[in-house]
Amino acid sequence: MSVTAPQGFAAAGVAAGLKSTGKPDVAVVVNRGPRKVGAAVFTSNRAQANPIIWSRQAIQDGIVEAVVLNSGGANCFTGTFGFQTTHQTAEKAAELLGVSAGDVLVCSTGLIGSGDEVFRGKVLAGTADAIAQLSEDGGDAAAAAIMTTDTRPKTAVRTGDGWTIGGIAKGAGMLAPGLATMLVVITTDADLDAEQADAALRAATGRTFDRLDSDGCMSTNDQVTLLANAASGIRPDLDAFAASLADLCRDLAEQLQQDAEGAGHDVTIEVANAASESDAVEVGRSVARNNLFKAAIFGNDPNWGRVLAAIGTTTAEFDPYDTDVWMNGVRVCTAGGPDRPREDVDLTPRATHVLIDLKVGTATATILTNDLTHDYVHENSAYSS
Amino acid sequence: MSVTAPQGFAAAGVAAGLKSTGKPDVAVVVNRGPRKVGAAVFTSNRAQANPIIWSRQAIQDGIVEAVVLNSGGANCFTGTFGFQTTHQTAEKAAELLGVSAGDVLVCSTGLIGSGDEVFRGKVLAGTADAIAQLSEDGGDAAAAAIMTTDTRPKTAVRTGDGWTIGGIAKGAGMLAPGLATMLVVITTDADLDAEQADAALRAATGRTFDRLDSDGCMSTNDQVTLLANAASGIRPDLDAFAASLADLCRDLAEQLQQDAEGAGHDVTIEVANAASESDAVEVGRSVARNNLFKAAIFGNDPNWGRVLAAIGTTTAEFDPYDTDVWMNGVRVCTAGGPDRPREDVDLTPRATHVLIDLKVGTATATILTNDLTHDYVHENSAYSS
Repeated sequence: MSVTAPQGFAAAGVAAGLKSTGKPDVAVVVNRGPRKVGAAVFTSNRAQANPIIWSRQAIQDGIVEAVVLNSGGANCFTGTFGFQTTHQTAEKAAELLGVSAGDVLVCSTGLIGSGDEVFRGKVLAGTADAIAQLSEDGGDAAAAAIMTTDTRPKTAVRTGDGWTIGGIAKGAGMLAPGLATMLVVITTDADLDAEQADAALRAATGRTFDRLDSDGCMSTNDQVTLLANAASGIRPDLDAFAASLADLCRDLAEQLQQDAEGAGHDVTIEVANAASESDAVEVGRSVARNNLFKAAIFGNDPNWGRVLAAIGTTTAEFDPYDTDVWMNGVRVCTAGGPDRPREDVDLTPRATHVLIDLKVGTATATILTNDLTHDYVHENSAYSS
Repeated sequence: MSVTAPQGFAAAGVAAGLKSTGKPDVAVVVNRGPRKVGAAVFTSNRAQANPIIWSRQAIQDGIVEAVVLNSGGANCFTGTFGFQTTHQTAEKAAELLGVSAGDVLVCSTGLIGSGDEVFRGKVLAGTADAIAQLSEDGGDAAAAAIMTTDTRPKTAVRTGDGWTIGGIAKGAGMLAPGLATMLVVITTDADLDAEQADAALRAATGRTFDRLDSDGCMSTNDQVTLLANAASGIRPDLDAFAASLADLCRDLAEQLQQDAEGAGHDVTIEVANAASESDAVEVGRSVARNNLFKAAIFGNDPNWGRVLAAIGTTTAEFDPYDTDVWMNGVRVCTAGGPDRPREDVDLTPRATHVLIDLKVGTATATILTNDLTHDYVHENSAYSS
């Protein structure tokens, strides 16, 4: 049910011909109220797709009636024509839904630079088709329609004290298959105002999606949207809602990690006893982005030297000669030297845990990443597909 | 002849048993004077190998009598024992050469965490053996002995007005095969003082080796050393010497790029019309480190969207909608949209040229990198070899 699990939401997913496979590629999620609260976070990449430019403006008033999403084309670097396509998409949805175009968000994912007249025609027709098929059971159809190279749809639902949160997601954040993108829509029937929705969303994404770093490549199209309609009539305890929202986001982030393109290992990098949370994040991200470390994990090689070499490139407070590294529960490095033998570490399971103990403070952070594999190279070297 | 091309230098390379293949693995380069001027630049990684820690101290007085280098073991994160190994290596060379240990630099390359008693014994014996075989024709033997996964030795010679510069190098800077390392020794018989040598070396490396970024992974052992002995009796024109030294370093950097582990393309990223040189370097490096771009080049795919997406993650001054991207002479993107068709670009040659025209200033920079290939993943995922 995903985004249609909370009361007062409808969704649909249809095949508009954007994908050469004929699979569904346009989705619509509509908020039927009573409240039309929306919040969104966007890619921090300065090269931004037309839907991002549009949606950033549309979200300003905190009101969102609907989100239109397409796979099969990023509509990024497609010039004025491409921006007009996004604008027309919002206008088309608004007209059919009887709302203001300024309250319709648009999301796209696919190849950068694609977005010609044919693309526009299919997106507009697909939008109309999806709106005609809107259903209170349509959440899973929407989840399927935003997939690109995802092998399975990503959905999650959480329930609170009289309220529900549902979400759909596609694409591993910065793994960016074919430079496609992380798109997420989350709905709730809890009664939140725009400020509360925004605060809860930023807090949740900051420690979940923002800490998924599959391949270090930041997309031009990332967007995470939260819609809140108060259909449950419940004003939630804000701490409980925030915790539930964060848990749902963590669940979706892990689903993205576990379906990251070409990945052979899902690597959880836990940084402990850092001087600050930002230090912990910097260290975890530096290791997550180190190709030599990632290739070693692919080869089931507990190469802790590459972990320390990656930490050494950061500005984090640490002493290379008083840092411990554990891999899957085995301390392979302590105090700047080898500890237990590499042979003791079993890296064959897909789920891989790396613990870096910086021993300088009490802050922690966890970064989710993947290994660097032949399949990753293969899937991302194929001609712009 | 390489490092023994200038007058007054001797070198040797011997097999000490550090490499399981039995190939040469210990090299010594000795300055026979009359002057014993030395300058060196080191990795900026905060995780530093024992030879780096030693050599940083030894270079302080600007006097270097000899450099001892070994492949087959990085002697990094090997604890106090590993530092003593480096110290003993310098002592051994000093004793046999009749000089001060504080004037002997040490360099190592190979697997991090390797450096036990057996390693120590072989390095010390190899050092003595190499010193016994020192020859004024030994430069090429030294070049061979510092190779790890290099497929060929890297050497270069330049001559000026009565003086000569020679150099040897191994390993593509930050490609770091097996987390081995870029080691470079450059000799000259020009008459330079320590300050002049240091200034010339920093200027040359800053625009050559520092702009080679094969895989974004910074080694723990990088060291570039310049020895100057005035044996020619010539005080060079400093501008001419600096230009010649920079040209030699560029030559060696390109040799490193062209032999980078697993690479299928040598990619020259030229950033033009940037607001500042640092902006140009940041943009070039960001593209050079983008795995999606690198995988696309491997697949002969002129995927300019990935170039713009990489630029978008920088702080450089640029307008995504007024940036041009050329690949091998074909403008594939202009003003934030597609230009000439992808099919017009031939990316099959190994030498690949990407021109990014930022159109905001007059500064330029060139970054050398490689593509991301199956061979790179394979060679770096094999068990710590």
